[in-house]
Amino acid sequence: MKAIRRSTLVACALTLTLFLPVGAQQASPDLARLEAAQNAANDKPGARTVPGRSIPVPSTASPQLQTSIAAPYRMPAWNADPKSAAEWKELIDRLAAGAAAAQKGVREKLGVTMEASTIGGVKVFILTPKEILPANRDRLLVHVHGGGYVYNPGEAGTGEATLMAAYGGFKVISIDYRMPPDFPYPAAMDDAMAVWKEAVKMQNPRNMAIFGTSTGGGMTLAMILRAKLEGLPLPAAIAPGTPWSDLTETGDTYKTNEWLDNVLVSYSGYLRHAAELYANGHDLKDPQLSPIYGDFTGFPPAILTSGTRDLFLSLTVLTHRKLRRAGVEAELQVFEGMSHAQYNFDASAPETKEVFTEIARFFDKHLGQ
Amino acid sequence: MKAIRRSTLVACALTLTLFLPVGAQQASPDLARLEAAQNAANDKPGARTVPGRSIPVPSTASPQLQTSIAAPYRMPAWNADPKSAAEWKELIDRLAAGAAAAQKGVREKLGVTMEASTIGGVKVFILTPKEILPANRDRLLVHVHGGGYVYNPGEAGTGEATLMAAYGGFKVISIDYRMPPDFPYPAAMDDAMAVWKEAVKMQNPRNMAIFGTSTGGGMTLAMILRAKLEGLPLPAAIAPGTPWSDLTETGDTYKTNEWLDNVLVSYSGYLRHAAELYANGHDLKDPQLSPIYGDFTGFPPAILTSGTRDLFLSLTVLTHRKLRRAGVEAELQVFEGMSHAQYNFDASAPETKEVFTEIARFFDKHLGQ
Repeated sequence: MKAIRRSTLVACALTLTLFLPVGAQQASPDLARLEAAQNAANDKPGARTVPGRSIPVPSTASPQLQTSIAAPYRMPAWNADPKSAAEWKELIDRLAAGAAAAQKGVREKLGVTMEASTIGGVKVFILTPKEILPANRDRLLVHVHGGGYVYNPGEAGTGEATLMAAYGGFKVISIDYRMPPDFPYPAAMDDAMAVWKEAVKMQNPRNMAIFGTSTGGGMTLAMILRAKLEGLPLPAAIAPGTPWSDLTETGDTYKTNEWLDNVLVSYSGYLRHAAELYANGHDLKDPQLSPIYGDFTGFPPAILTSGTRDLFLSLTVLTHRKLRRAGVEAELQVFEGMSHAQYNFDASAPETKEVFTEIARFFDKHLGQ
Repeated sequence: MKAIRRSTLVACALTLTLFLPVGAQQASPDLARLEAAQNAANDKPGARTVPGRSIPVPSTASPQLQTSIAAPYRMPAWNADPKSAAEWKELIDRLAAGAAAAQKGVREKLGVTMEASTIGGVKVFILTPKEILPANRDRLLVHVHGGGYVYNPGEAGTGEATLMAAYGGFKVISIDYRMPPDFPYPAAMDDAMAVWKEAVKMQNPRNMAIFGTSTGGGMTLAMILRAKLEGLPLPAAIAPGTPWSDLTETGDTYKTNEWLDNVLVSYSGYLRHAAELYANGHDLKDPQLSPIYGDFTGFPPAILTSGTRDLFLSLTVLTHRKLRRAGVEAELQVFEGMSHAQYNFDASAPETKEVFTEIARFFDKHLGQ
């Protein structure tokens, strides 16, 4: 308890120091006090003590990304704690309505058309760019949306598929898989696999890729694990973006980027509840729920994307390293100042175009024609 | 001032909450209070408010890396502020003596031999592995050590070259370039270029690579800029590890990973003083001092390395993105929980071997034989 008490006083003193106006903060007596307090709090092996502080919006991101970085926490999305299935549905529908409303304008601006359809008995959306690149005529991408296995049903989940279609010049199938509270695990994975089984009849799987962000990134990895188990064809490449590859709170940036990431903010928000709701009693460390615990041997080439403020930066780099250790060709791209999945937020941000252009280049390298 | 005062109180309350024992911390009233306070402090566009807190050592790093992550701040290295040339020299010599003393054992353990020599009038060390791989017989690497342009003269700067020789099976020239306080910019770069000009006569530059970490990573990039300007041959590949590519305090993780990185800790420590001492009145944004401001067109393929707690994570990813935007083949590897350059600290850590094995693979792909 003694160590705890000293740290408390130190950290509180630091906090007071740090919130002085900038001029005073730079003055050497305050800096010296902060240094001394931090040195004292970090002079023994163990946990790291960091002071409370205000962190400016970085000038090193584009103006559009700076706007996303500066945005307030996403309430109520990040910290939702619905007490019943009805409350979940009300929240999910309300958030989805807002997200879906924005999609039409994005598609029009980027020249992408959308068609609702059904594949393998599962609802999907087909996104088609104004021009399918000649090299992509016999290629087909499958998209799995994000949202913690609860958010983004219907059109709300199609944003990333639109960006990929537009910036990559690909035709994309976006899977509108079933979700909790009505349909917990394994419904989402069953739906994704049902689509995959049909999609590989529509096109040569060597000309195909699977991609998705966050939950969609985790599902992309879980789909490969399940396709391996079931002896199904694998795609030629995958792009798991900042994948929710571990549903337990495991990974350093769950803590280091806590309260810094303005999208997910903290595992203690909706993530914990969503993981439990989805798992529905299943072991969270089952590789079908947390694919980081699976065997990545034989995986297709992968490109992973994250940001320096991303709560899932650790999940992304741990997944990248595990793929590399399994001998899989895997690329990593990390963007300055970006919180979780923020490359999907503003179609006009140069970083957004960069993310999808890099993924398209990677797919072009690995997919047959 | 009103906003500042509210934030101060909020952050201080958070600090007190967070340093409660773990059991109490998880209890919902405390979490609810923390959530509410953080939401209130982050409900408007702008700077991000994060609470003071204790961040545990991640279980997701190897035991050896966990020891490095758990280590206290590196005092006096991180926060040195010598008041005279004599004080700088005393500190530099003292730290170098400690670092050099450790090197002999590492070389013996890894089967690497070292020979002091002179190339182009500049002091160098030649590191030779027990076995030079057959593919590497006509290959030669040039190493530029780190240390903020002040630390690691002599044998103290050879550690990374030993690791590369051992884990890659390459012969390595490590440059013992001149440094402040006696020799500010451009002495270090003049020495590095003098060695490079001679080295390309010793071996075909298409069979050569340049690598280095931190200041050595920045110098690697600056060497390519200068070789381009002077019409000298370029190496076939480079490996700038967590490069000090911007000597000004520019880049988001200078702030987000401040006090978290236990190696560099903060720009407000020795880094600021070292930058000024080295620049000696030159513009810190001159691309020869801060190569991020240079033109990366025509650069050789590059592999960059950093860690999630690295103060220079932003510099690494900004450099990676700028290389990619210039059309350069560039790979990125980021390691879980790692602070600045920590892959050079413990030869026995699996992550250390992984870093240099990946760099060796990249070199093998791009270097002629």
